[in-house]
Amino acid sequence: MPGSSFGQAFRITTAGESHGPGNVVIVDGCPPGLPLSEDDLRPDLARRRPGQSHIVTQRSEADEPEILSGVFEGKTTGTSIAILIRNQDQKSRDYADLEDRYRPGHADYAYDAKYGFRDHRGGGRSSVRESTARVAAGAIAKKLLAELVGARVLGWVSAVGHVEAQVGDPAAITMDQVERLPDGSPNIVRCPDPAVAAEMVALVEAARKDQDSLGGVAEIVAVGVPPGLGEPVFDKLKADLAKALFSIPAVVGVEYGSGFRAARMKGSEHNDAIVRAAEVPTAHATGPVAARSNRHGGMLGGISTGMPILLRAAVKPTSSLPREQETVTRALEPALVRTRGRHDPCLLPRFVPIAEAMVALVLADHLLRQRGQRGAL
Amino acid sequence: MPGSSFGQAFRITTAGESHGPGNVVIVDGCPPGLPLSEDDLRPDLARRRPGQSHIVTQRSEADEPEILSGVFEGKTTGTSIAILIRNQDQKSRDYADLEDRYRPGHADYAYDAKYGFRDHRGGGRSSVRESTARVAAGAIAKKLLAELVGARVLGWVSAVGHVEAQVGDPAAITMDQVERLPDGSPNIVRCPDPAVAAEMVALVEAARKDQDSLGGVAEIVAVGVPPGLGEPVFDKLKADLAKALFSIPAVVGVEYGSGFRAARMKGSEHNDAIVRAAEVPTAHATGPVAARSNRHGGMLGGISTGMPILLRAAVKPTSSLPREQETVTRALEPALVRTRGRHDPCLLPRFVPIAEAMVALVLADHLLRQRGQRGAL
Amino acid sequence: MPGSSFGQAFRITTAGESHGPGNVVIVDGCPPGLPLSEDDLRPDLARRRPGQSHIVTQRSEADEPEILSGVFEGKTTGTSIAILIRNQDQKSRDYADLEDRYRPGHADYAYDAKYGFRDHRGGGRSSVRESTARVAAGAIAKKLLAELVGARVLGWVSAVGHVEAQVGDPAAITMDQVERLPDGSPNIVRCPDPAVAAEMVALVEAARKDQDSLGGVAEIVAVGVPPGLGEPVFDKLKADLAKALFSIPAVVGVEYGSGFRAARMKGSEHNDAIVRAAEVPTAHATGPVAARSNRHGGMLGGISTGMPILLRAAVKPTSSLPREQETVTRALEPALVRTRGRHDPCLLPRFVPIAEAMVALVLADHLLRQRGQRGAL
Amino acid sequence: MPGSSFGQAFRITTAGESHGPGNVVIVDGCPPGLPLSEDDLRPDLARRRPGQSHIVTQRSEADEPEILSGVFEGKTTGTSIAILIRNQDQKSRDYADLEDRYRPGHADYAYDAKYGFRDHRGGGRSSVRESTARVAAGAIAKKLLAELVGARVLGWVSAVGHVEAQVGDPAAITMDQVERLPDGSPNIVRCPDPAVAAEMVALVEAARKDQDSLGGVAEIVAVGVPPGLGEPVFDKLKADLAKALFSIPAVVGVEYGSGFRAARMKGSEHNDAIVRAAEVPTAHATGPVAARSNRHGGMLGGISTGMPILLRAAVKPTSSLPREQETVTRALEPALVRTRGRHDPCLLPRFVPIAEAMVALVLADHLLRQRGQRGAL
Repeated sequence: MPGSSFGQAFRITTAGESHGPGNVVIVDGCPPGLPLSEDDLRPDLARRRPGQSHIVTQRSEADEPEILSGVFEGKTTGTSIAILIRNQDQKSRDYADLEDRYRPGHADYAYDAKYGFRDHRGGGRSSVRESTARVAAGAIAKKLLAELVGARVLGWVSAVGHVEAQVGDPAAITMDQVERLPDGSPNIVRCPDPAVAAEMVALVEAARKDQDSLGGVAEIVAVGVPPGLGEPVFDKLKADLAKALFSIPAVVGVEYGSGFRAARMKGSEHNDAIVRAAEVPTAHATGPVAARSNRHGGMLGGISTGMPILLRAAVKPTSSLPREQETVTRALEPALVRTRGRHDPCLLPRFVPIAEAMVALVLADHLLRQRGQRGAL
Repeated sequence: MPGSSFGQAFRITTAGESHGPGNVVIVDGCPPGLPLSEDDLRPDLARRRPGQSHIVTQRSEADEPEILSGVFEGKTTGTSIAILIRNQDQKSRDYADLEDRYRPGHADYAYDAKYGFRDHRGGGRSSVRESTARVAAGAIAKKLLAELVGARVLGWVSAVGHVEAQVGDPAAITMDQVERLPDGSPNIVRCPDPAVAAEMVALVEAARKDQDSLGGVAEIVAVGVPPGLGEPVFDKLKADLAKALFSIPAVVGVEYGSGFRAARMKGSEHNDAIVRAAEVPTAHATGPVAARSNRHGGMLGGISTGMPILLRAAVKPTSSLPREQETVTRALEPALVRTRGRHDPCLLPRFVPIAEAMVALVLADHLLRQRGQRGAL
Repeated sequence: MPGSSFGQAFRITTAGESHGPGNVVIVDGCPPGLPLSEDDLRPDLARRRPGQSHIVTQRSEADEPEILSGVFEGKTTGTSIAILIRNQDQKSRDYADLEDRYRPGHADYAYDAKYGFRDHRGGGRSSVRESTARVAAGAIAKKLLAELVGARVLGWVSAVGHVEAQVGDPAAITMDQVERLPDGSPNIVRCPDPAVAAEMVALVEAARKDQDSLGGVAEIVAVGVPPGLGEPVFDKLKADLAKALFSIPAVVGVEYGSGFRAARMKGSEHNDAIVRAAEVPTAHATGPVAARSNRHGGMLGGISTGMPILLRAAVKPTSSLPREQETVTRALEPALVRTRGRHDPCLLPRFVPIAEAMVALVLADHLLRQRGQRGAL
Repeated sequence: MPGSSFGQAFRITTAGESHGPGNVVIVDGCPPGLPLSEDDLRPDLARRRPGQSHIVTQRSEADEPEILSGVFEGKTTGTSIAILIRNQDQKSRDYADLEDRYRPGHADYAYDAKYGFRDHRGGGRSSVRESTARVAAGAIAKKLLAELVGARVLGWVSAVGHVEAQVGDPAAITMDQVERLPDGSPNIVRCPDPAVAAEMVALVEAARKDQDSLGGVAEIVAVGVPPGLGEPVFDKLKADLAKALFSIPAVVGVEYGSGFRAARMKGSEHNDAIVRAAEVPTAHATGPVAARSNRHGGMLGGISTGMPILLRAAVKPTSSLPREQETVTRALEPALVRTRGRHDPCLLPRFVPIAEAMVALVLADHLLRQRGQRGAL
């Protein structure tokens, strides 16, 4: 089976490479009557766009979306929505010398083994360029979540290399804190801890100067999700969310709630005491029942509890490096390879809207799935 | 959409609760001609079985599988294989006082919110009892992997609480090391580091005495997987493997290769140098190209590279505790709850065969998917 | 992809052969709270059962269903429902001489080509025995349709060979007319035109005496279906209903509404005038808008209109004949073959509940799909 | 679940309306290495195009396809292929007076009931305009079938109203006979019986003058299909082919092989004698075993036998009529409605390439599915 579709009731299918004419996403299953125009897609596409600041890749793309179907008189019709985002900055020549050698940390050899040959221009389908389609579709999912149940999804950078942010209540972080610094200037690294944000920017700048790259961790929180989403056994909400995040390039780890720390805890320390919703802050429970703490990250048995859903994704350092690395050619001759191109010294700032989009897509999907079986939310 | 199916080309569908008549799995898509009988299913079912040692739950289940279809004269026919495993030890009375109150750390409230009511006998469909079906199906997937490409999947316990095993080359660990101690006695905690295994057993015994429970980490390795498995974008091999592991009860984190440690590394430290396969140990590469190290965990761009696939799953401490915990009733009255029943003080020893099964199911599925598109492996 | 699953939101997966231990169906996605026990499954299983009259196969099967999961205290839990129906009358020896030769009109050679070998005992998975699973699942779908929207599905035999029934308003036919003759005796051929029913019985008796078999046509009607079911483009209701009926063994043609007769009509003759629902009989419209006639068979653009859904399926004469027929062996030697066994001289009487089940499954599925996208029906 | 995707291993997803910016199809799962350019898509798009002759709609569309992804250096990459076909002739004003009244024979009311409102411009998603996407994708499927197994799919018009063509061996009809008359002029009605073709053209011309429309029957034949395609039980080849054809607008009946005539035959008349392939014409068997006749239409047990696959689809007369018809408004007031626009007086000539495309898509899908399970064809 091919793998370019995601979701069941709210389902997206994508196509497009980094150096072809463009990227396309078809969103199928969106309820009718949702107000929608290209303006709804632009903000998140801008957050994902190359060239948005000096700490990301300087490739230049307008990322202008065109809605080709599924919207009539400003509202979704209930039928499939196609969105086209043309590529502009296709400097394939940067990649000419990669045709014959495999880049370390990249999918070059794996694609070659899979398909018998590969599109060597910037990674083709394995490039993060395909995530424009995810972000455009995710913007629709976010609108739907807001409209149907008032839920929202927000992410931020919580670590770059060894530098970690300190945030208080994750459910209280705002988009404004993620996007702006206290002085109103753009928070280019998308870390809501302003002091640490500055440190992260300096770290990324240093890595770039050093022809190196950095990894990090992003945190994604969904607030306002009703209890009862997710299916028993295989399509647990935690399982679909994990798949969603792991499907993004460079993600090498995912955890929710207390995550890997839970492995070192005792049951008596880890279980969250169950209380009435009235006993916790409003944003902390959508149902009548809540928990005093949220080590369970908003999901038990893989089903949402109505508490904030807390996820973290580990992102590896960018594999493309402008320094020579050891490899072999297709003919198995030892060789050195250096990636010219224009790459992100750290993927995290642009990763945030992509991760948010994937989380929103999973939640929208499970919302409609649950509504199908139960008839209401 | 319901969520009781997993996989696409090699697809399983399950049913069954902890306290109903039994569990069923239908395996669809298995190639014809694979030798198969109940004897192939018994070893892994025995590794998962309650009561197998004094550090796991003392519930008593024979877990005897019956193949109901899809096998003729000792071989698979290519049509759907149904396997029934009847429940025996259904002491529902242990759960009578849980009918009205939600257990902390359990799916009780989430199921109630989802379905409007719940089967309170031992968790119903959210009980780990459903994993008998996974393990039976996984045993078929393991056989298929061995037959088609000589691949094998093996897991073990790498941490219980703060105690961590030291293993050398993960691709060199054997089933015998996982199942037996050097003196030939059963390795009841399934940790291939014998000294640490003893420590872990003591730790679990202490937790049980203390009416508490422990979490831990399991490591799962797949050796012999050909390069090229996994689909671009959404059905990346890493994404489907993560979903598979996160679908298991109590899993709260998954990582592969260097995982969360990668977030703290530089690109120049993290990229694995690419070399000819001849330069690495045999078990380390199935294709002509290999990497000198395996921080990438056998997958790049989400596609297998032919190197060993390395996964780790964090498992939270058992939520069922024989001590009183704070909760509310369905009528939202504060209450205390104590789980009688017979529970695992630490899930890890029985988790290993379940995790192996899920990994094998994903690999078998992607093997057939790849074969469909390319015609050969 | 394997093909043992059907439906999306209300989804069934089956396993089982004619001469194995039994047949299993897993029903996934059924809403919680539906009253359900084995008693709900027995009536339709009895209508499908071999040996029910002298004009059907005399194979003897109790077809006793056992619900293995998904029901708690007499109601569905919302999780997957497994049903097991064991086989009893497995006289495999009847088939010993078929091992080496292909039966005309049967799937023997096709299965051999597909799988490299085949289960020659009575057709294995290609036997109509698998339809026990369909009928059991269909009984649940029928209950759900009745409960959610008051819809009902009823089928009957409208032709056997050249003999055709005359029925008036198809939406007015009752289960009693299908199952009983005016004198209260069983309507063994399931034709609601009593005079023609007698003729059909005589025809079938004659065919059996003549060691021959007969084909025929069944009509299936669904009344009470709300308008708006079915998806644009590929999953049109008419497309999914056609697939459902064509998936049943021996079906060689399907039409709805005016069907093949429409090919000979003009648009001005064929279009049904649209009127207010008040102007047509109650059973003829579930929405506010109706049509004066129903040449469109309750679906336009592949979406239900609220009018009765009218389907017809052509069933070929039974391929198993107790007379010698020309064939070849697996070694391609010319040979003669005669089917001993106990076969239906005409499949139609037992076909009716199978066809009803498939139609009910499609409607239940689309009902839940529509509810997912729109939130209500 | 949404319904804009079709197929599993070779899977298409479409979007687009008659009066929006354009139609898009994403083809996912196509094997890598297939030579492909827009030139491969143009011939079938031209056969489907409005305005191709005086007996079809005079709407003017260039139907120029643009491949947006999945092709590199003239060959498919194995990743998803997106194709965009922009709409040009969007005279929405023709439809202004339809906003408030339901057209008989159209999906207007059904869509309104389904979505709560509708795109009234020419049917939106229910217009046959969406079939450009099917035809473009079908052209790729046809190429794949030819390349992998040498199979070909060809359709023609076998009846318009009461006029029926007489063709001899359906497996011997050529594309040239369908597209050209003996004198080399275009066979605008696509009937390979030249005398009857002339009669059909006259009939369609008369219907148009009379402000009326005609139905008809198309025949589709697939030659060169290997035995063994199709899955037991639900995804029988006959079931998927029927769904494919019924998913096309205006199809009201489908049969294969002897079809509805089989209902009037005896088993002894209907069964095809099995013989060695050497005894039948070459085009009649791809495997070593064949049948002396082909009443079974190339499928037994729903699995291909290697004989030609013979299908027929009944197409209703065009519902859009330029004469007044009885209806109601959305406010349920009685009204008259007349469709201006530019419509086909008979859909059949343009139906042929659409039906061929759907049959090719099913066969390509099952070819890859079979290859996945068996490893070769």
